[in-house]
Parts: sequence; C-alpha cells; structure tokens
Amino acid sequence: MALVNDHFLKLPNNYLFADIAKKVNAFRVTHPRADVISLGIGDVTQPLCPAVVEAMHRAVDEMGTREGFHGYGPEQGYDFLREAILKNDFVSRGIHLDLDEIFINDGAKSDTGNIQELIRWDNSIAVTDPIYPVYIDSNAMIGRAGLKGSDGRWSNVIYLPCTAENGFVPQLPDRRVDVIYLCYPNNPTGTVISRQELRKWVNYALRNDTLIFYDAAYEAYIADPDIPHSIYEIRGARKCAIEFHSYSKTAGFTGVRCGYTIVPKDLTAATLEGRRIPLRPLWDRRQSTKFNGTSYISQRAAEAIYTPEGRSQVAETIGYYMQNARRMLSTFRRLGYRVYGGENAPYIWLKTPGESGSWQFFEELLYGANVVCTPGVGFGPSGEGYVRFTAFGSHEQTDEALRRIEKWNG
Amino acid sequence: MALVNDHFLKLPNNYLFADIAKKVNAFRVTHPRADVISLGIGDVTQPLCPAVVEAMHRAVDEMGTREGFHGYGPEQGYDFLREAILKNDFVSRGIHLDLDEIFINDGAKSDTGNIQELIRWDNSIAVTDPIYPVYIDSNAMIGRAGLKGSDGRWSNVIYLPCTAENGFVPQLPDRRVDVIYLCYPNNPTGTVISRQELRKWVNYALRNDTLIFYDAAYEAYIADPDIPHSIYEIRGARKCAIEFHSYSKTAGFTGVRCGYTIVPKDLTAATLEGRRIPLRPLWDRRQSTKFNGTSYISQRAAEAIYTPEGRSQVAETIGYYMQNARRMLSTFRRLGYRVYGGENAPYIWLKTPGESGSWQFFEELLYGANVVCTPGVGFGPSGEGYVRFTAFGSHEQTDEALRRIEKWNG
Repeated sequence: MALVNDHFLKLPNNYLFADIAKKVNAFRVTHPRADVISLGIGDVTQPLCPAVVEAMHRAVDEMGTREGFHGYGPEQGYDFLREAILKNDFVSRGIHLDLDEIFINDGAKSDTGNIQELIRWDNSIAVTDPIYPVYIDSNAMIGRAGLKGSDGRWSNVIYLPCTAENGFVPQLPDRRVDVIYLCYPNNPTGTVISRQELRKWVNYALRNDTLIFYDAAYEAYIADPDIPHSIYEIRGARKCAIEFHSYSKTAGFTGVRCGYTIVPKDLTAATLEGRRIPLRPLWDRRQSTKFNGTSYISQRAAEAIYTPEGRSQVAETIGYYMQNARRMLSTFRRLGYRVYGGENAPYIWLKTPGESGSWQFFEELLYGANVVCTPGVGFGPSGEGYVRFTAFGSHEQTDEALRRIEKWNG
Repeated sequence: MALVNDHFLKLPNNYLFADIAKKVNAFRVTHPRADVISLGIGDVTQPLCPAVVEAMHRAVDEMGTREGFHGYGPEQGYDFLREAILKNDFVSRGIHLDLDEIFINDGAKSDTGNIQELIRWDNSIAVTDPIYPVYIDSNAMIGRAGLKGSDGRWSNVIYLPCTAENGFVPQLPDRRVDVIYLCYPNNPTGTVISRQELRKWVNYALRNDTLIFYDAAYEAYIADPDIPHSIYEIRGARKCAIEFHSYSKTAGFTGVRCGYTIVPKDLTAATLEGRRIPLRPLWDRRQSTKFNGTSYISQRAAEAIYTPEGRSQVAETIGYYMQNARRMLSTFRRLGYRVYGGENAPYIWLKTPGESGSWQFFEELLYGANVVCTPGVGFGPSGEGYVRFTAFGSHEQTDEALRRIEKWNG
C-alpha cells in the first residue's frame, strides 16, 4: 500500500490566519452591522505603481505577437532582471555577485520553504522566536523539526527568544547548530539588526560551519543608513549565507508573484565523510527540476521597479505605508502601550498590557474596537503577550482604526 | 557542520536539454553559416490568443487601481478559475468534482515534482519508460529512486517499457508497487491510452492500493473521441489518482505559468499502522506552506481560455500545430521511417533506422540536415533507438526542416 509521509500528521491542524478568520467570522455573525478593520494579515493594499503597470502591458502585448512571444524562460530567471538586481540591489552597496548566483522565483515563500531540500533531514535548526511559520513548518514536513509539544515547541528546533527583555536581539545559540533562520527587518516584530550584531552571527556561522538562511523580504523599508540591507554587506557572509528577497512588500507584488534568492558560489555544506559540496549547483538543479521559471510578465514588472520612475513610485508607496506606521506608533505610545518596530519595517509589535495574553487582547480589541490584529503567540512561544499590527492599510482605514482604539481605551 | 542532502549527488550532472544545447553549439561554432532548425525542445512558438491578451490587459489595469488591486490570492487559486475548470474540463465530460479538489498552480512541472512530498521516502515507484525526467529526478532528490546504474536505470524504480513491440502500451507491473506515474497523451512518444486500457490501470491501482500520478498535460491535443481526457472518466479513479493539467501546451502558457492539479477527497494513503489518511488536506497544507498562489494576471489569462472566443482561438492554435504533425507524419512515412504518435499529441516518436542509436541519429540529422531532434534515450533506457520530434514549430520552419530531411535522405 502507498504510505503517507506521516511527518505531515505532526503539523497542527490549525493555521494562525485561518484561526483568526474563524474568530472574525464568529464576531461578524453575532455583530452583523459592525464594520471590522483588519490591521492583521500582512498584505498590501495600494495599487501597483504606473511604471510596473506600463511594463506589464508592454509584456502582454509582446506575448500576443509571434516576434515578441516568450515561451519557457530560463528556470533561473531572465538576465534582464538579474542584471537590474545585481546593479541596483548589490553593486550599489558594494556587494559583488555573479549573475548566476541570482535565482528569480515566484515569491520568497516558495524558496524559504524549498531551500531546506538541499540539506540532510537530520541537520539541527535554530530559529529566532517569534518567527514566520513557514521556516519551521517546511522543516516539519520532512521530519527535521521533530514533534510539536503541548508548549508549542518542536522537539528538534532550537528557539532563540526575541523579547523586550533582550531588546529583540537574540543571543547566539549556546551550542552549535547546523542551520539558522534569520529575518531582518523582522516579521513579526518589526525590529532590525545592526551591522555589528549581524557580524556576530556571520562570525558564529563561519566558526561553527553553520548555514544562515537570511530572509530580507522587508529590506526596502529600512530608513536608517546604519542598518544593513543584505547580509552580504558583512565580510564572510558569501561563505555561510543564502539570502531571500521579495517584491511583495517592496512593490505590492503579493498578487504578481516575483522575488529572488541569492546562493553564492562560495557556499558549501559537507557530506558525512566531510567532503565540501557547493550548494549553488544543487539549488540550480532543484529549480531546473521542480520549477519552470517565473511568469515573463511578472519578471518584466519587476524590472520596471528599477527604472528611475519605478524607483520613485515604489518609494512613494513605501512612504505611504510608513506614514501609517508613524501614526500607529504615536497613538499607541500616547495611550501608554509599549510598542516596538515600525521604524524600519511595516510591522508594529505591541506588548499586551498587564497579564492579558495574545489571544485575549486580540478578542478584546475585536469586540471592543472592531479592529483585527495578529496574536503574537501565533508566531511562536516568545510571541505570547504581544500582538502584531501592520502598516499596510489605507490611511483612512488606519486612522479610523486608531480612532476606535483610542475611544476603546478612553 | 551543516550536512548536504547527498541524494542530490546521485543525480547525473548532465541534463538532456543542456547536452543537446552543447552539441548544437559545437555544431554552430564549426558551421557558423548554417541555419539550424530545432524540432527538439517541447516549447510552443505561436503567440497568446487575443482573448487571453485582452484578459491580461484588463487584469493589469485592475491591479493599477485601488479598487481592483489583488494582493495575496488563495494559495489554492481563485474560485473564478476553479469554477471555469470544473464546468468546462470536467462537468462537460460527466465528471463531478468539488471546487476544493482543484488546486491552481504555476505549471504542471512544479506539482509533478512536488507531489511526491506527500508520500514516505520508501514507497516503491514505477514509471513508464521512456518518461518525462522530472518524475524520477524529483524522487531521486529525496532518496526514493535509489542509485542510478551505468545502464541508466535507478535501482529503486520499476521501469515499464513502452516500445513499438508492445504498441507503446505498458504491461501492468508483475509485482505490486506503491506509486505509478502515467502520462497520456504521452510525452515523449506521442501515443495515447484507450479507455479500456486505462481501466486496467485503475483496477490494478484499486486492487493493490497503489497511487497513480496521472499527467494529462497534453489532453487538449486529443482528437479521437474514444480517448479519455481525464483519468476520472474511469470509475474508481477518484480513489486512486491525482491528475495534473497544464495550460502550457493547451494555450501557449509556457511563459505565463498556470496549470492545475486535482486531488480528490476520496484519495487516501496509509500510515505504517494502516490508518487511512486523506491526501487532499495534506496537499492543501503543503501548498499553503510552500506556495503563495499563482499570479492573478495568469489566472485571469487562464479563465479567458474558457470563454467562447478563447475556446475557438485556442482550438485554432492547436489545429495549427497538429497540421505540422500531419505533415511530419506523412513525410516521415514517405521516407520509410517508422513513426508513432502525432495524431492525438504534439509529439512524433521516430524509430531510428537500422542499428543507429538515438544520439547517433541526432548527430547525423544535425550535421546532415541542420535539424535538431531529441534523442529518445534521454527519456529513459527504452527510448534508445528512437528520437522525438515536436509539432510546435511554425509551418514555415517545419516545412523547411522536412524539405531538408527529405533532401538528406534522398
């Protein structure tokens, strides 16, 4: 008989955002006239910028002609986009990469989920806690995470707590681990890592032969010039880190599906016998076998982000969202909440007052102000006692939500 | 130290189409004035049809407005597309599915590669031989295929030969296997399976508790009314089969990236203890964790294929390619070749004359007629002594290639 991959059965049936939706629906059924505003899920709301829209129209027109038609593209992405990335996201920051170290994808979720295929099932993994659930769940599906305990912790995962007590800067693990997931600017806490702190992690990785999977999906939101946009700004990172980028939050591509991953040629992992194996050709092989490239139209759309018009239009939208973040921070602070993030990231991490846990605060806010946030504990054990707000709403909705929260507090 | 997934190291370094490209380049370097025509790689050449182009323009315009903007879509795809699929591809053939048994993807290659994640690493697999390389390679990456021998066979894969001798109809395996990959209309042989033959496979699967992964990527090319378009036309298939569909060859979407997969609710696999686990929720979980949905624009494009204009335009392009197939069949037959397929599929499978192997014929054709075909042995051991031609060229290129082959033979 065909046997199921029973690692899947270790995953809890509930999924954070599905649970939230269920509770919101329950509220709506009992309060049919209430107008609920969601500052919960991290999806953008503003339209694609004109430069992107024009580029997509041009690409669609090309595809409708025999001369301009594009069939299968390279699984690794078109050079026109890889060149734009290299020039704008890396060379401009003093980082040198080869074009074939850049892999275009259909969004960072796919690659942060798939990247673990390159390593043995029995590597140890460490994650900052709270964390984007995909990192652990994708490892759980292959058996690498072990079993999930009643305390919400996976038995084979090392959790590195990030809380107000340590300024959301995780301590280096007290033992060596094989793989570490880092995400900066951080989802969900909205906090960032300084160059000096990041150097510690790279040095730890080099010393311990550890791989870092670095998720830079929110780097476009960094305003502070001292905060690194890429782990490759740190010397030695080419030998230990894979980096994930996304256009989803940079340019509103959550429905367009395009991002990219960097796998440097210097990066290796070992066989049991200690032979060093470069990972770039393995990722190339993985992508060539199980992926058939990103939509040509989406790749042309991404290219347009790097034109002068595209850059300024994208910056404007990011500015729009960050204006929300400033208003939220200021209101929350005035109301006496302890809040974090929101300065170099579109997320605000709020300490729930007193003893109220994440879900309790979520429900009180929903019933009291008809505003939806995301319970922090959904992102991991150290998220208990926090909730996440996102800056991706419209100004009108965000302002209205803040007014309600103010009234509810008053 | 981080350990590499050393199953990747068992994969041969060469990849069929890369090898072909290398040989073609070598020829071009030594024959710079020769004009090479490729009837090798299975990529389409005709533009997207007007209905699709219009739908994509509309979708792009929507994405440029605040009201029409679409962010993250459902990982499983939009209902507008799932409903069109259900109605046009299934209900019209008497097949009833629930909407949530349909999963929209970014092309069949991803899903045929990823589907094996649902089953334990130690299930036995069987493939028809020759075969689309992704089926085996994706299993090899997780260790399920075993080791590749010098005879080109993987140690844990059961090969079901399809050759002229058995009319390209594989025999049922002589022992029970856990998973069987079937692809009809077949890539690379271009042959089809009758309803009666397919029933044998479904009955085998039901009797032996075997899963069938059924690749129907070429079903739009079926002209004969007696040939099934979907395995669900066979009673009982809902209990044993997952089916993959693609718009790549149906509507020229190789650069647009959209397809779909059917995972019926009746389908289960077992735990070691014999508990039956439905696979649909597992695939749903897999997609929700490692995939973030298909581009909204690509999904609107796919929807347009099902409009009356879309249907007739798509049929016209398929007719255009199948005209190539008819000309090729007729020329090859006139020249005395034994050829198969090409009547309900865009592929023609040609027996190389005498003792010449696949690669020898490939080189002779390249140097003699400057035409590229695909060596059959690249698709598996039973492909030796065959080459594949595709009908996806333009009429002009196809006719010119046939003229040259005729001259070369004369």
